[in-house]
Amino acid sequence: VTPLTWAVLLPALLGGPVKVKADSPSIATRYQEDAHRLIAAALSDSSAYSRIAELSDRFGSRISGSPALEAAIDWILAKMKADGLANVHGEPVSVPHWVRGEESAELVTPRHVRLHMLGLGGSIGTPSGGITAPVLVVSSFADLQRHAAEAKGKIVVFDVAYPDTLTPFGAYGAVVPYRVTGAIAAARVGAVASLIRSIASLSLESPHTGVMIYDSTVQRIPHAALSVEDAELLHRMQERGEHPTLHLAMSASKLPDAPSRNVVAEVVGREHPEEVVVLGGHIDSWDVGEGAMDDAGGAVASWEAVRLLQRLGLHPRRTVRVVLWTSEEFGGVGGRAYREAHRADEPRHVAAMESDNGVFSPRGVRFTGSDSARAIVRQIGALLKEIGADGVTPNAGETDIAPLVADSVPGFGLDVDASKYFRYHHSEADTPDKLDPAEVARCVATLAVYAYVIADLPERLPR
Amino acid sequence: VTPLTWAVLLPALLGGPVKVKADSPSIATRYQEDAHRLIAAALSDSSAYSRIAELSDRFGSRISGSPALEAAIDWILAKMKADGLANVHGEPVSVPHWVRGEESAELVTPRHVRLHMLGLGGSIGTPSGGITAPVLVVSSFADLQRHAAEAKGKIVVFDVAYPDTLTPFGAYGAVVPYRVTGAIAAARVGAVASLIRSIASLSLESPHTGVMIYDSTVQRIPHAALSVEDAELLHRMQERGEHPTLHLAMSASKLPDAPSRNVVAEVVGREHPEEVVVLGGHIDSWDVGEGAMDDAGGAVASWEAVRLLQRLGLHPRRTVRVVLWTSEEFGGVGGRAYREAHRADEPRHVAAMESDNGVFSPRGVRFTGSDSARAIVRQIGALLKEIGADGVTPNAGETDIAPLVADSVPGFGLDVDASKYFRYHHSEADTPDKLDPAEVARCVATLAVYAYVIADLPERLPR
Repeated sequence: VTPLTWAVLLPALLGGPVKVKADSPSIATRYQEDAHRLIAAALSDSSAYSRIAELSDRFGSRISGSPALEAAIDWILAKMKADGLANVHGEPVSVPHWVRGEESAELVTPRHVRLHMLGLGGSIGTPSGGITAPVLVVSSFADLQRHAAEAKGKIVVFDVAYPDTLTPFGAYGAVVPYRVTGAIAAARVGAVASLIRSIASLSLESPHTGVMIYDSTVQRIPHAALSVEDAELLHRMQERGEHPTLHLAMSASKLPDAPSRNVVAEVVGREHPEEVVVLGGHIDSWDVGEGAMDDAGGAVASWEAVRLLQRLGLHPRRTVRVVLWTSEEFGGVGGRAYREAHRADEPRHVAAMESDNGVFSPRGVRFTGSDSARAIVRQIGALLKEIGADGVTPNAGETDIAPLVADSVPGFGLDVDASKYFRYHHSEADTPDKLDPAEVARCVATLAVYAYVIADLPERLPR
Repeated sequence: VTPLTWAVLLPALLGGPVKVKADSPSIATRYQEDAHRLIAAALSDSSAYSRIAELSDRFGSRISGSPALEAAIDWILAKMKADGLANVHGEPVSVPHWVRGEESAELVTPRHVRLHMLGLGGSIGTPSGGITAPVLVVSSFADLQRHAAEAKGKIVVFDVAYPDTLTPFGAYGAVVPYRVTGAIAAARVGAVASLIRSIASLSLESPHTGVMIYDSTVQRIPHAALSVEDAELLHRMQERGEHPTLHLAMSASKLPDAPSRNVVAEVVGREHPEEVVVLGGHIDSWDVGEGAMDDAGGAVASWEAVRLLQRLGLHPRRTVRVVLWTSEEFGGVGGRAYREAHRADEPRHVAAMESDNGVFSPRGVRFTGSDSARAIVRQIGALLKEIGADGVTPNAGETDIAPLVADSVPGFGLDVDASKYFRYHHSEADTPDKLDPAEVARCVATLAVYAYVIADLPERLPR
């Protein structure tokens, strides 16, 4: 008698198979087979990676307001229809249209060096002919205050290092205020322009852009990022008493808002088509690199997850809707527009999921919701143990779903190994080669299992 | 009675101090204290790193033939005199003078992309107006032969990956033939230009240059490096059947040879001033980045090692001579010139040492010489155990000392942890921030101990 035989015989000897209450089988029992099918199908398919690469290579970067973004959206809509997805359409969104133009930062004394720079998104340009001014390098906002008397007429450089000791997003959070609000602080003490050390966990003279803001109470001054190396060069020169002087020229400008679209497609629910699990990523990017990681990866992985349900004929009770949000990089414009457009049906949104930390090796989800929902989420997570994506940690995060989550829709962020994310983020190096097809496939599997199970559970996920 | 007292008393009780045979104390016995003094002094001094940074920042890149190289040499000569070193002088060398000029590589179909490129050193330019041609991507020389019939009139792209499974210099050796001789192979099958995937262990759209050669039996065609990412982009496009076409424009040219100098300075031997231990690095660099790692680091660490002997008043029996060779990057021009200029006194060269793998954490030396010499080298290495630099492995390598080593001068290459070397090598990212002051100080200590002990041993290191 082998153990297997005992497993068959024992229930019979004890009076027949163990009965589970018919109306409450566990999630494991009910969904194990479907989850396994989804995972196996995702892992045997490299089309997610291929589509990320093709989208990235074909259209390149897709900044808010650009023709490339709209061309990419047209291409996706056509592909989604060809995939056989339902209700494929674009939902109009008016989006910011900032254009970088020509730009340069040059060290003019003590010697001439063309620096590695990128203007920050939303910055004004310099006067034509540029600005030439001495540099004041500071190590923090507090350091700027200490040297406030020296800042007038200077180009302030915030040389603040990415703190390697924190988690990637913890480190980002610690230094991103210099990018977002550095121009305000510098203008307040009379600077004529401000520069930041790029937010980067590793640099090869590779500057990183990102959004910045002004404050109506102070002068607007140009704001740009230098490479880590160039910020350190200026700092060393200042410490040696060499009084570096820069010439900064930027023709950046803000044009009128432009028409764009959130991309929507569905697998329609078989019992409650009006109830919706929404998942997606953002389709816009910065205007450097190809935006392959941020966020073609999350957008395509979400799309592929829905296509996988369609392809396997897994039609859940509720609708699964993929949304590729537009203009995330300028402050979650597409995400806010989605919420506005769906005010009426927002109460029927069962869950909102986003992937925007790169489609690297998935560890599970970050979840925002009630304790009762979390208990169910943990059971769903357990279905992903075979690919190591069973983790459930707090705080969904994610810009595009934030308006829904703020209105109590349970929120999920795809949790990945983001240890290399800030090497590439918002830089020329955000290209498809940074992603691994097998890791991307595991992200697709994770998104597909969560979306399918939540959409199919007999009871709605509680708020 | 303390242990110290016993150490004094015991020999007296036993009949006087223990006598070591006067002419053969071990190297450990004889040099332990001096070695420890040198190590302690090097480790408590950050001037090596400061000088690398100042040299790099003040003059920037120092390509063979450039005014920046000669200005750097003038500055170093003046500093060496101020340091109190002896016989400070430049030895004239006529060096290659290749100038990059303006250059660009642009994808023109299927869409416009400005690629990340660097012309290779020695390449001809394109005709003015550039070359526009379809691309043929190949994976190896053998792959080029298989597609030889398709190469005519095309721009051949060698997309050959840096093999991560090898040691850093093993990997470099495996792919560097594409950089050095790729234009010859491509021209043989009728290509109009050739491009390589940059030799890089990690890339952030960061191209790497380096020297290339032609062959008088085939047409000279322009030869340049693309970033790893761009080579892969073209490869993906070709695999998708998108037939990429490039526009390549390079105004590179070769000017007449220019005057330069090998920099020489000494601590003169107290017994055999005519016998010489030579150590150094090369002072030229490529024309991108600051050449901080390759090889301001090795040059300055050698200089600092000699300055340390001077400062501590350690005057060995023989002369210790630092040489900063010029024009290494164009084929070891300075190293060959040094050998020619010193033909007469070459027999009195006791050892030749070079640091050109970056002044990263030192592990010891790579040694080329006789077994009897190696036994002595191992004993010297043991003096460096406290800083983990006691390793002695075969094959000195190093371009500038190669002519001396070929003539049987015992050769030493500083052996370091070069795992990050090919991130920065010959690229914009070769800047001082890539070096660590504590690691640099350990390199100085290793060079100083070896140079001092070899110069001071009663017997010359056997050939």
